[in-house]
Amino acid sequence: MAPGPRSLGRLLNPRHIAVYGGASAAAAVRRCRALGFTGELWPVHPRRDHIEGLPCHRSTADLPAVPDAAFLAVPAEATVEILAELAGRGAGGAVCHASGFAEDGPRGAALEDALRAAAGDMPVIGPNCLGVLNYLDGTALWADQHGGVRTGSGVAVITQSGNIGQNITMQRRALPLAYLINAGNGAVTGVPELIEALLEDPRVTAIGLHLEGIADPGGFARAALAALRRGVPLVALKTGSSELGAQTAMSHTSSLAGSDVLCDALFRRTGVARVAEIGTFVETLKLLHVHGSLGGPPDPAGRARITSASCSGGEAALLADTAQRHGVELPPLPERSAARLRHVLGDKVSVRNPLDYHTYIWGDFRAQQECFTALLEAGCDMNVLLLDIPRADLCEDDAWSTALDAFVAAHRRTGAPACVVGTLPEGVPEPVARRLLSEGVAPLQGLADCVRAIAAAGSIGAARRTADRGLPPHGARAVRPARKEEMLDEHAGKRELAGHGLAVPDSAVARPGEAAQAARALGFPVVAKALAAETAHKSEVGGVRLGLADEKAVEEAVSAMTGLADRFLIERMVPDAVAELLVGVHHDPVFGPALTLGAGGVLVELVRDTATSLLPTTVTEIEDALSSLRIWPLLRGFRGRPAGDVRAAVAAVQAVCAYVEDHPEVTELDVNPLLVLPEGRGAVAADVVLRRVAPHRNNGNDEEESP
Amino acid sequence: MAPGPRSLGRLLNPRHIAVYGGASAAAAVRRCRALGFTGELWPVHPRRDHIEGLPCHRSTADLPAVPDAAFLAVPAEATVEILAELAGRGAGGAVCHASGFAEDGPRGAALEDALRAAAGDMPVIGPNCLGVLNYLDGTALWADQHGGVRTGSGVAVITQSGNIGQNITMQRRALPLAYLINAGNGAVTGVPELIEALLEDPRVTAIGLHLEGIADPGGFARAALAALRRGVPLVALKTGSSELGAQTAMSHTSSLAGSDVLCDALFRRTGVARVAEIGTFVETLKLLHVHGSLGGPPDPAGRARITSASCSGGEAALLADTAQRHGVELPPLPERSAARLRHVLGDKVSVRNPLDYHTYIWGDFRAQQECFTALLEAGCDMNVLLLDIPRADLCEDDAWSTALDAFVAAHRRTGAPACVVGTLPEGVPEPVARRLLSEGVAPLQGLADCVRAIAAAGSIGAARRTADRGLPPHGARAVRPARKEEMLDEHAGKRELAGHGLAVPDSAVARPGEAAQAARALGFPVVAKALAAETAHKSEVGGVRLGLADEKAVEEAVSAMTGLADRFLIERMVPDAVAELLVGVHHDPVFGPALTLGAGGVLVELVRDTATSLLPTTVTEIEDALSSLRIWPLLRGFRGRPAGDVRAAVAAVQAVCAYVEDHPEVTELDVNPLLVLPEGRGAVAADVVLRRVAPHRNNGNDEEESP
Repeated sequence: MAPGPRSLGRLLNPRHIAVYGGASAAAAVRRCRALGFTGELWPVHPRRDHIEGLPCHRSTADLPAVPDAAFLAVPAEATVEILAELAGRGAGGAVCHASGFAEDGPRGAALEDALRAAAGDMPVIGPNCLGVLNYLDGTALWADQHGGVRTGSGVAVITQSGNIGQNITMQRRALPLAYLINAGNGAVTGVPELIEALLEDPRVTAIGLHLEGIADPGGFARAALAALRRGVPLVALKTGSSELGAQTAMSHTSSLAGSDVLCDALFRRTGVARVAEIGTFVETLKLLHVHGSLGGPPDPAGRARITSASCSGGEAALLADTAQRHGVELPPLPERSAARLRHVLGDKVSVRNPLDYHTYIWGDFRAQQECFTALLEAGCDMNVLLLDIPRADLCEDDAWSTALDAFVAAHRRTGAPACVVGTLPEGVPEPVARRLLSEGVAPLQGLADCVRAIAAAGSIGAARRTADRGLPPHGARAVRPARKEEMLDEHAGKRELAGHGLAVPDSAVARPGEAAQAARALGFPVVAKALAAETAHKSEVGGVRLGLADEKAVEEAVSAMTGLADRFLIERMVPDAVAELLVGVHHDPVFGPALTLGAGGVLVELVRDTATSLLPTTVTEIEDALSSLRIWPLLRGFRGRPAGDVRAAVAAVQAVCAYVEDHPEVTELDVNPLLVLPEGRGAVAADVVLRRVAPHRNNGNDEEESP
Repeated sequence: MAPGPRSLGRLLNPRHIAVYGGASAAAAVRRCRALGFTGELWPVHPRRDHIEGLPCHRSTADLPAVPDAAFLAVPAEATVEILAELAGRGAGGAVCHASGFAEDGPRGAALEDALRAAAGDMPVIGPNCLGVLNYLDGTALWADQHGGVRTGSGVAVITQSGNIGQNITMQRRALPLAYLINAGNGAVTGVPELIEALLEDPRVTAIGLHLEGIADPGGFARAALAALRRGVPLVALKTGSSELGAQTAMSHTSSLAGSDVLCDALFRRTGVARVAEIGTFVETLKLLHVHGSLGGPPDPAGRARITSASCSGGEAALLADTAQRHGVELPPLPERSAARLRHVLGDKVSVRNPLDYHTYIWGDFRAQQECFTALLEAGCDMNVLLLDIPRADLCEDDAWSTALDAFVAAHRRTGAPACVVGTLPEGVPEPVARRLLSEGVAPLQGLADCVRAIAAAGSIGAARRTADRGLPPHGARAVRPARKEEMLDEHAGKRELAGHGLAVPDSAVARPGEAAQAARALGFPVVAKALAAETAHKSEVGGVRLGLADEKAVEEAVSAMTGLADRFLIERMVPDAVAELLVGVHHDPVFGPALTLGAGGVLVELVRDTATSLLPTTVTEIEDALSSLRIWPLLRGFRGRPAGDVRAAVAAVQAVCAYVEDHPEVTELDVNPLLVLPEGRGAVAADVVLRRVAPHRNNGNDEEESP
């Protein structure tokens, strides 16, 4: 591993470990021994003579040498003191088990600041964590029980929850764990640094992340992109999606694009596969360990293509449904494979994918091997054998073993990626799973988790291919100052954006008596809107009148709105829109500015047809976001209607993004609707709402003209 | 069990069993013995002297008595012959293992007809099945290996797949199985008859159905409603949802409402909880076995309310996310519970639901019992303890046992429904699961499956409450004759429906020269439409012109459409619609007529915001369907807009349904859009497409006037 003041190499794979504390320190000694740690263990205790038979050192100063790693299971205040001593002597790093830091209110937060200061450049895992398990080299800087065994290579898991980490070590699924790191509060060493350290170890085949939030999106993006470049797949079980429901936000955009959606955008951009269930997490890691991300066809959606074999039509149907639900394809078999299958299976079996190979060849190794070989040679990204092994305590399983042997033989013969899937997790018992692993066949436990794992591995493969074409850098973290915000009125907002190239309707600002004349000059029909800042939803208070066909109509409309404002925006109506879009930017305190595209108008709230990206973004991401919308067919010309001016729509979105980039004081910007006209006729912003940090001036709305 | 010629009582719980065939018959004898069957076993074989030590009878005629049950593991033709002998002698029923019947093409279908004729009134399970396992009385009319043990009560599973049934018997989840029935082709005895038979056995606590289709919706509905009335919950794992994607249908409605959607409608109406994954299926059955359907609050959506306790914030967050995704509520705790929890947990623990109770009380039985009791007394429908038991081969689990004991004690003390959930299925090992079952606490394996099981049990509870208010009868199965269809032109279609009370715009039919005059008589603005039958999508071919403001506009419009028709429908424009709905009826060959309500206009295809019900339906179902739509807020008055005339919209839907009921020749009917006007102003059908079986006449469109 690369050396350097911040390097985690010594901490993760230490030659000597100092353990501080009583029972937990003793337990760490026992666990290191159980894992076969061959380095030195130095208990440190001010009063006890021996811990687990080892002589205790009185203090850090008494240690025989500067330790590579320290395990601190002492109270919070003592933790900070010892950390300072260790850092001062140049220790390789420490695990801090104690809680009572930032998770525990203001006093704890102050203590965490002190901890950070004490650590300096020394890596620290925790505080408020169970620690680090290294199953490759056999170290357990770990404060509680755990499962798992030594391995030569495997997946690394970084988790923000000690319990979830502990449960993962207890799985009965033959998942080879290389590292399990409970990051805790991540006061010093965060998830990005941990990812980067794990990437230095070639024995790590994939990295699983259990995250409760992303504190540093920029650092996370750098680490995730580094993993993508090195071909080490990342899978994330991120919690917090349900906070969305609790959010109440003033504006449409921020209520639609909570930070969980921004995590999704970050994951998508950096090739991190997100899963929602812990079983899926484990199975995806296992699949990635064996096969890596799935190569797959040049399908922009990254849909993995699989074959499936089962001795049951019911299971085949279940797989087909599950595959469709999760975007995994079961393509028709090529004729060469189909012909071989017809030959070996006979007339009574219908040859298709998924294949129910029936019972005629059950127990017949040669025929099964031929059958599976034909499937594995079909050129798919993954080949599934659905097979639940009977309970050994209740049944004989000879014929099942034959099917397994035939499938393994077909895998050996073809080298094609293969997995054996138990429809229930217990359908692949641990010894069978271990045997399959050793043969290079992924043992996957639970049909639905298997399909989700394949979908996840396919999405990582797709991201790798996209990454080969270049990725946008992630913008620096930009936290808004907590200053007063102001909202520009619609006219001022439109002028701002027009300066960056956004098309807006022809318009004039008029006092009540001037409105009709202004309308005549623009040409009918017109729209009249009450012009007042701080009114985001004018139409709800009757401040918008559409389709005014003549001067009289304008006068009546303005007169009806006199209570709302004393200035009115008169605009030429824009006819023939093919589709209405929402183009929104809001500012997340962690992720910075984010762009939300969606179905505009009233639909934005009812249908929630939106796609969110992080800024800065690219034309490709904008196009991908638009084409992911359900209303996308409208833009392409739907059911005989004219196609929309997609190029102009994309340019309008770019104009909005460019404006936001040039104006970091913008906190929120909604163009809704952006009227997309027929091809060649452009895209026009019918309404603009713009909020920004109030400038330190006291004049009107027109400062900060765009160049 | 009730006697009678069709009763399954003798077959499911026989006093004597005749087994026909060689190896499979011998295996059935062994398995009956292994399950402790105490009745008589009579092998029948024309040549062998003994099977499994029992003397063989040469034929059915040689049997010592008429058997209650027969297990036929002989070829297809022989199966039919023996069945005729058994039926002729009054046997109680038979299981037919042989394949080669309807699943095998026309020749097999003919053989299945012969089998049906041979069986007469005698119940027959199969053909093409593994058979029946009765774990209550210990009979195995079963052709292959199986797991499972004797039980005093348990769930029954009916499956159309032998393999899936076999896998379910092998589960390691302590699910007590009462019966497992592989229905096979169901040639004689179908799923409805099996359900009804199982309802006769009070030891059956819940029934699980694995279905590949529903052959007889009327019979299914009767059986499911009988189960609902008796409080025996039904859960269905139905495959075939992905066939939807493959369907190509001419019309909007039938492409949106494939038969899988109709299954959903049938399940919803009859209180069957549908699940999508086999793990969910097993866990839902286990939860229902222990606790039955969940009572819950008077929430029309049937959202179950739960509390959750875990010694981990990470797990609590995971549960909260999963619960939100599946519509399970974690309500705030009542103050009484919260106060007790604050008292026992101390200041450092934040008391909320889901509760992370932290490690302070870890290993402390009394404190944990108090903590769990406070949660169980909060009055929720279900109380969850998230706890993964460590692997016994790697760790000690004393402290975990303490938590289990405390939770069981809290359950005993309060009587409140409770379950222990392993985040991974293996987190609740089988012995622990069995112990919890014996304590009346449901052991649920896998966090996501647990949440889905609770959601399913909640939905059954909601259906029971609805059923108490009365349910619509399911209409008789009505298969359309395969006669030629005709499509009425829009004017004719509207006249038909107007006769049943559907409001349509004022209109006139005009030749090209008469159009302007007709428009003047109606009043401007008007719409002009080319009138031609067999043109479902007029607007796509330019056959619709909206917003014609004067005579000149009408003349121009009609002239531009002369190529499309020689008659034109001139209609008064209907302004001010609050929302546009689709009201569609299509005719499914199995389910009969079905009603689809949805967002109308172009949205129907882009957003797929629809709800489908079976006909006949009720006002309540229509209202429930409307309020389930995403555009429902538009009808209620959205963001300052006027509310729609919901009553008129419902009446319009009823008019459409009444018309279809009176006209069984209708094969498809789309009102799209139905313009819903502001409250008190009605709902008007802007377009109608009506297809029906062509009558045996040769005149125009106006036959069959409505009364």
